Amino acid sequence: MHTLSDLLEAHRSGARALADTVAEVYRRIAARDDPAIFITLRPHADVAAEAQALAARGAAGLPLYGIPIAVKDNIDVAGLPTTAACPAFAYVPEKDATAVARLKAAGALVIGKTNLDQFATGLVGVRSPYGFPKNPFKADLVPGGSSSGSAVAVASGIVPVALGTDTAGSGRVPAMLNNIVGVKPSLGLVPNTGLVPACRSLDCISVFALTVDDAMAVLEVIAGDDADAYSRAMPLAPLAAPPPAPVLGVLRPDQREFFGDPDAAAAYEAALARWRKIGARLVEIDFAPFAETARLLYEGPWVAERWIVAGDLIEYNPAAVHPITRAITEPGGTASAADAFRAMYRLKALRKQVEPTLAAIDAMVLPTAPTAYTVDAVQAEPILLNSRNGTYTNFVNLMDLCGTAVPTTVAVSGVPYGITLLAPAGRDGEVASLARAFMAAGDLTLGATGAPLVAPPLPAPKAELDRLEVCVFGAHLSGMALNADLKAMGGRFVAEAETAPAYRMKLLPGAQPRPGLVRVGAGGAAISGEVWSLPMEGVGRLLATIPAPLGLGQVELADGRRVAGFLAEAGEVAQARDITEFGGFRTFVEHPQAAAV
Amino acid sequence: MHTLSDLLEAHRSGARALADTVAEVYRRIAARDDPAIFITLRPHADVAAEAQALAARGAAGLPLYGIPIAVKDNIDVAGLPTTAACPAFAYVPEKDATAVARLKAAGALVIGKTNLDQFATGLVGVRSPYGFPKNPFKADLVPGGSSSGSAVAVASGIVPVALGTDTAGSGRVPAMLNNIVGVKPSLGLVPNTGLVPACRSLDCISVFALTVDDAMAVLEVIAGDDADAYSRAMPLAPLAAPPPAPVLGVLRPDQREFFGDPDAAAAYEAALARWRKIGARLVEIDFAPFAETARLLYEGPWVAERWIVAGDLIEYNPAAVHPITRAITEPGGTASAADAFRAMYRLKALRKQVEPTLAAIDAMVLPTAPTAYTVDAVQAEPILLNSRNGTYTNFVNLMDLCGTAVPTTVAVSGVPYGITLLAPAGRDGEVASLARAFMAAGDLTLGATGAPLVAPPLPAPKAELDRLEVCVFGAHLSGMALNADLKAMGGRFVAEAETAPAYRMKLLPGAQPRPGLVRVGAGGAAISGEVWSLPMEGVGRLLATIPAPLGLGQVELADGRRVAGFLAEAGEVAQARDITEFGGFRTFVEHPQAAAV
Repeated sequence: MHTLSDLLEAHRSGARALADTVAEVYRRIAARDDPAIFITLRPHADVAAEAQALAARGAAGLPLYGIPIAVKDNIDVAGLPTTAACPAFAYVPEKDATAVARLKAAGALVIGKTNLDQFATGLVGVRSPYGFPKNPFKADLVPGGSSSGSAVAVASGIVPVALGTDTAGSGRVPAMLNNIVGVKPSLGLVPNTGLVPACRSLDCISVFALTVDDAMAVLEVIAGDDADAYSRAMPLAPLAAPPPAPVLGVLRPDQREFFGDPDAAAAYEAALARWRKIGARLVEIDFAPFAETARLLYEGPWVAERWIVAGDLIEYNPAAVHPITRAITEPGGTASAADAFRAMYRLKALRKQVEPTLAAIDAMVLPTAPTAYTVDAVQAEPILLNSRNGTYTNFVNLMDLCGTAVPTTVAVSGVPYGITLLAPAGRDGEVASLARAFMAAGDLTLGATGAPLVAPPLPAPKAELDRLEVCVFGAHLSGMALNADLKAMGGRFVAEAETAPAYRMKLLPGAQPRPGLVRVGAGGAAISGEVWSLPMEGVGRLLATIPAPLGLGQVELADGRRVAGFLAEAGEVAQARDITEFGGFRTFVEHPQAAAV
Repeated sequence: MHTLSDLLEAHRSGARALADTVAEVYRRIAARDDPAIFITLRPHADVAAEAQALAARGAAGLPLYGIPIAVKDNIDVAGLPTTAACPAFAYVPEKDATAVARLKAAGALVIGKTNLDQFATGLVGVRSPYGFPKNPFKADLVPGGSSSGSAVAVASGIVPVALGTDTAGSGRVPAMLNNIVGVKPSLGLVPNTGLVPACRSLDCISVFALTVDDAMAVLEVIAGDDADAYSRAMPLAPLAAPPPAPVLGVLRPDQREFFGDPDAAAAYEAALARWRKIGARLVEIDFAPFAETARLLYEGPWVAERWIVAGDLIEYNPAAVHPITRAITEPGGTASAADAFRAMYRLKALRKQVEPTLAAIDAMVLPTAPTAYTVDAVQAEPILLNSRNGTYTNFVNLMDLCGTAVPTTVAVSGVPYGITLLAPAGRDGEVASLARAFMAAGDLTLGATGAPLVAPPLPAPKAELDRLEVCVFGAHLSGMALNADLKAMGGRFVAEAETAPAYRMKLLPGAQPRPGLVRVGAGGAAISGEVWSLPMEGVGRLLATIPAPLGLGQVELADGRRVAGFLAEAGEVAQARDITEFGGFRTFVEHPQAAAV
């Protein structure tokens, strides 16, 4: 049992005791035998005691009941040291980070704090004085970073989910290199309260998991505005079936950069082929403005943000800082404010430039990293290869996008490759839904566990914050005169539906026959219609086209659910012909008696 | 004839030839006899020739047909030098600034380029090598800056409208000191293409006029996204009657700073009294975070943006730059990128801190400037007094607000005072509508012309394609429980309204009393409500919150117009208490009988 969803079900049903789950975590840690995964590992007994208290309380209201989780060691967990992989920087926080507090409140059990590239500066995972976690999927590869320990802990099956962070790709590159899922939320969706900054204006807490469903289960718990200056109130759509023909932006062939790795190129092609197979429409985009933005991150003034965090230490105790981290951070101490503003002007222009590109697609599909490097290669050329790793990730937070990184294929060489789906901030749920559909269409295993991916059924859709279901009964039905209007307003067919047996259907006068439903309670009948989902804006446009005596009210369906739907003003249709007996407008218009008065 | 609206009507009707308007402009320039208003004044003959060509074409489709306008000399007009009040910086642009091109395309006639505090750095109007315009309203006062020439040209009746710019208050402080209106749009609403930057991330082009109507007529022409990196697509609501009981944030008595000017304090009190008289609800806000933000502008790294513009000149030709401008700009050359990011973190926190304050009010009402200084005083203490002038303006662009500055009262001393209304970006039209209502309730004269303000009738609202009018009758009415929700959905008050005499109002059961209207035709009565305009998306959000048996149908108003509005399902409310006799829900809830069953 590897996934959060499986564990949760087992915990809830009682098929698995929380204590057994905790014991299994520590058995797997021992089996893995890699002391570089965790910087601080809580004693088994402590976590077991916490699990016991939780079990006594029960699962009710706890969406992560008994789920073991690992936390990257730049995120505060009360009572455990936060090191940011720099012993001289370490402190013991009294309070949990907001995200951690929310996880605990949801029933999760924090197992320990994971290793990282020092100060979250790096994409390789080997820049830590605590050693580096071995890649469990392919031993000679770097684990990826900066969230190395969290990614490895998930890939090796120790925990189903873990928190990482992501400023330049630290939540995505390690996901690819470990054959797992990395969800990089919109900036500010998860508050950064209790996070050691890397670049404070660009940081976010991210989630690693074996499946998109598991990552989203965690994201739903930790998302939500708090007092942090950079946190934002924004919607998070639940996982759902994606649009049947999503439009995806892909790299132009001449802009595909894999640094000579044919397997990476083939993996990207294979991913695009899979997208086509499941109905996506692929459009080539110009990657140049994104590439320029990516270069701004390390060549521009944002390095000064890293200096703000580590500059004092570098100045007064240089030996305490990893030499590579120091080399990268030091230029940030001399950049001028004028340089910073000039770079921000350029960024603003680049963002403006890509607006139409992003508006025309559902998401971008990019390789997560252009290739996978070995530990030996990275140690020989530590800065250049690290920087190449960020080709397709560095620009993402500067452009204010959200993304989900998922595995695609494993090359014959054993190297795992992946893609990342990206869209403007606020579309985390939509992007994750696309990523989920893509994974479900593949033939994947979970991390390094060898277990096959079995996508659980989509959860029953919760109300989508930015769409509304509307029940139609007349000319808006599929195939009828106004159905195209409904589609033009963004309408998506959801299901055929029948009302509760409480309505009468009247025939409205006019050149175009239209039905009008009136609730009468007893004496009413069930009327058949169709439920369509509309974006909120489309609901407004629809209402603007509806003539009296029709309007949109709440219609009771046969299953007791109430949805928005067409109703008529009872007083205005009292004299109109009653056509309830037909059971629905389609039956009526198709019936020879339809024309009869 | 002084206002744009009067001129436009006279031009359109033929009562006034364009040539006569142009001749009158030059007569007034001669009569005013102040060579420091314009840095470049076009020859009369050139403008007359342009007017002749325009007259030959006719008024059709030209919303500013034959309107003379002055342009601040940091905004490009093709073929005229752009100096930014620094001769060594001057160049002759080949292209108009976007705003100027739009004005010309709308039929406006550019008369010339106006004086300013060099590089738009200053709020006093006396920091220019081209001399300084004399204040036409009270001769010993500074004209205000940096848009000194534009404000004086409007106040003295030379042109009805003029473009200024506003980074720290340059479009508002001179408005107060000249007894005119200054509209400071949301950042990015008017593109900055063709503008010499002051602080590029905080600049905007602003409008001076004698009335709010005139300023908005210009803003409607120049607003709209273009390719400039900082331009934004955002809505601009037309002028309308403001909500009947707007909620306005005002200064706490202990935070009112007038630097010892009792007349300024009295003018602010009088303005608040006038707001109370016209129905506003005044709530005291904490000004501390705004004051801290204001200090960030000049004490923080944003001065580096000024250095980007003028730094080269200061380094290689220091004598070419005004000594005070130099003194203010020089620290910008040494600020570090780390300082810049630290200040941005602080700004982000301050913006977060004021979010709830701003969300709870329709606008802030602040003094435009805390006092009015004489030329002699400013020349004796040029930096300190200038900086005091920005007490209530410096923070506005850092906080991403929009504002309208309007005159309030003239003290016995002859000093004009004013207030500025401020709200988050995107609410320019709403803020201007409030400002308009405030002015209409006063006893004001136009600038220094001595002519009384006669507010023209509100123009008939144009149909907005992306919004829908919805008539509300219950808890969504102004001041009631759900009114804040309506505003959060983007709702804007349009008008009080009454239905056709065809409805009955029922009291729905439930903890919160709510009314439900049902159309009955004969036997019905007129029910009073309010029409609100909602973005299409807001209509969807609204519908999503409406419980059965309520819905949105088409309501017939007393004037025969049908608008979307709340209706109840007749069958479901047949047994409910009939409260039609109250004529409206507000009367019902305020009536002692409300509780009676």
